Amino acid sequence: MADDPEPGTVRPGGRTARVRAAVLDAAGDALAETGFAGLDLGEVARRAGVGKTTVYRRWGSPTALVADLLADMAEQSAPRSDTGALLDDLRANARLVRDTLTDARQGPLFRAVIAAATCDERTAHALHRFYEVRVAEWTPCVEQAVQRGELPPDTDAPEVVRAVSAPLYYRFLVSGGALDEAAAERAAHAAVAAAHAGAYRKA
Amino acid sequence: MADDPEPGTVRPGGRTARVRAAVLDAAGDALAETGFAGLDLGEVARRAGVGKTTVYRRWGSPTALVADLLADMAEQSAPRSDTGALLDDLRANARLVRDTLTDARQGPLFRAVIAAATCDERTAHALHRFYEVRVAEWTPCVEQAVQRGELPPDTDAPEVVRAVSAPLYYRFLVSGGALDEAAAERAAHAAVAAAHAGAYRKA
Repeated sequence: MADDPEPGTVRPGGRTARVRAAVLDAAGDALAETGFAGLDLGEVARRAGVGKTTVYRRWGSPTALVADLLADMAEQSAPRSDTGALLDDLRANARLVRDTLTDARQGPLFRAVIAAATCDERTAHALHRFYEVRVAEWTPCVEQAVQRGELPPDTDAPEVVRAVSAPLYYRFLVSGGALDEAAAERAAHAAVAAAHAGAYRKA
Repeated sequence: MADDPEPGTVRPGGRTARVRAAVLDAAGDALAETGFAGLDLGEVARRAGVGKTTVYRRWGSPTALVADLLADMAEQSAPRSDTGALLDDLRANARLVRDTLTDARQGPLFRAVIAAATCDERTAHALHRFYEVRVAEWTPCVEQAVQRGELPPDTDAPEVVRAVSAPLYYRFLVSGGALDEAAAERAAHAAVAAAHAGAYRKA
């Protein structure tokens, strides 16, 4: 463990949990700075103030470390919005995605993990699991809109949540273009409009 | 040049153009097989049956080779559809994107280039340029729908084209999930529905 963690960054749990938190924080920093190719377990141990042996014994490989980091990120992520209005909820989701992708640490971290997933099955699996957890967190926003009668009853609610993220990740990874407030607003608005029109009805 | 190019693979142009075609084909094969990290100019020269010196002199680096490959891919890509119906045109676009991403050679090639772009500015620039060219090719499908009065007059036509690709690339790179006929159909339908509702009006 680092001797002086910043206030508020110490997570609950005993020494094992504290070691994990320190190692995952260090792994995230390293990924954001140097990408997956630069992820070295010995260097992560040094940054975390933890013995090398502990890190090698507990995680064993950079791939396993990234998988655990993604699992932790899913657990630590912000809870969904619950405004009672679908557009407002999805707008909050779009802003959260946009804020994450444009964050000075989180943006490069996501880029690194997504790049690693393109050439490693286990990382891809962990990445998909991360998004399953995040999509499941936000799905009730859409389900409640269905229950209120605002969307067709056979709407595929998780697909509507994914539709909000898709154009933002497309800019982030593929086409380029600003990830600004307008992009987030358009993503939320388009997903709601298409859902209203029945574009996400289950086949 | 390879001594026996397959019929139909020889492109027009003189020796310089033939060398370029052979080298870019070999570079694409190598990227699809081993990813960007495995792209070696000497190996590309060998595969293409071209002298190493020619490849080093003309391209100089793997990054420059990928940039030229992307420029060539943009030139060689399929022309847009022109059915006179917006949904049919965008459905053709969605199927083309889906067929590309699920193709045994093109899928891994796009994964490799997108991964390389996450950590290299010049590759990112070439990638963005590739999508600008592709989006511009398909934009008239949307512009014509605007002219026919089917969409709001201030619709951002390129953004509608990008909206068709976004959910397919999101599955491909981020969330996982099948890139099937239903995904392509949903992508086209959602983009048209959101465009009708004014979600892509210019700010």
